[in-house]
Amino acid sequence: MSHDFTVLGLAGSLGRRSYNRALLAAAAESAPEGIVVDVFDLTDLPLYNPDLDELLPGGGPSPQPVAELVERVESADALLLVSPEYNWGPSGVIRNALDWVSRPAGASPLFEKPVALAGASPGPAGTGRGQLQLRQNLLSSGSFVLQHPVVQVGDARSRFDERLELVHEPTRELVQEQLGALREWALRVTPASATA
Amino acid sequence: MSHDFTVLGLAGSLGRRSYNRALLAAAAESAPEGIVVDVFDLTDLPLYNPDLDELLPGGGPSPQPVAELVERVESADALLLVSPEYNWGPSGVIRNALDWVSRPAGASPLFEKPVALAGASPGPAGTGRGQLQLRQNLLSSGSFVLQHPVVQVGDARSRFDERLELVHEPTRELVQEQLGALREWALRVTPASATA
Repeated sequence: MSHDFTVLGLAGSLGRRSYNRALLAAAAESAPEGIVVDVFDLTDLPLYNPDLDELLPGGGPSPQPVAELVERVESADALLLVSPEYNWGPSGVIRNALDWVSRPAGASPLFEKPVALAGASPGPAGTGRGQLQLRQNLLSSGSFVLQHPVVQVGDARSRFDERLELVHEPTRELVQEQLGALREWALRVTPASATA
Repeated sequence: MSHDFTVLGLAGSLGRRSYNRALLAAAAESAPEGIVVDVFDLTDLPLYNPDLDELLPGGGPSPQPVAELVERVESADALLLVSPEYNWGPSGVIRNALDWVSRPAGASPLFEKPVALAGASPGPAGTGRGQLQLRQNLLSSGSFVLQHPVVQVGDARSRFDERLELVHEPTRELVQEQLGALREWALRVTPASATA
């Protein structure tokens, strides 16, 4: 690949003081050479409504933020989903975004899209239970989710400073390693016909 | 209990033509004597944002639909969550509602609240995978989820007519049976101190 490898980053929290938004920002800042992480903010996305889903029979035109998100997912080489764990699952915010982008089933922008998962939590678990539910959801959409390295950042209060800068160097290196692995993974799962 | 047993019903789809909204409507219509199912529409609920969560440190006043939902959950004897299965999970719409109502952890309106799950799908699975993820989410919130009967309505096109009336009598009986079991379950899990 001669062009930059483009990763669309989605944060599952809308909070200004979110560790997960901060973790995504750190990934964007410190992406390895040749990898670009663009962030799409989910704040203005409406709740999923099949009546507004132009890809369904009888559906109306999709709301503008949805159309933009779909276009951004389509054009990205891969996705990076950075979600808090709410109720032992991914946030409703990130699930709602996937509900929009996963249509139509089997032919959506998520189908065979390489995806990496990451998350941060104040407690020790680092969003592991939430990521496991997301993996199930992304099996349904036919996405190719990166298996390792796992990025589950526990004890977030000690990893970020007051301004939410990532100050824990091993975590920054892990994030960089994951982005590199995501690019390798995307190459591996690209069909032979597309690389010939 | 001499008063009616009140169940707050939430549908996880916002679509006008939703089988899950229709299933919830059927439950409300055909509730056994002494059980009342009220429906709260999630259409106007915003995406969960911790900056707008007055129950978190530094959070602002909750948006009006959230405050109303929280109050309705608190005052209900039990919940009935009727969600479609999107991406092998519950919808982002229902997950988002639970994200709002599950604060603060361990002392939210969902804590020890009796809950029943139901769902309908055009295919055979009847939302079983989505319900299993929801059970995990509701373990986190400390809710008491009814175990049986399971209401997973597959082949929905044959169970509802054109006007989305439930025309399959065994399914209606199952829905009624579940509501009765939910009332019994609520009695079983009520602390002895509250029934003395």
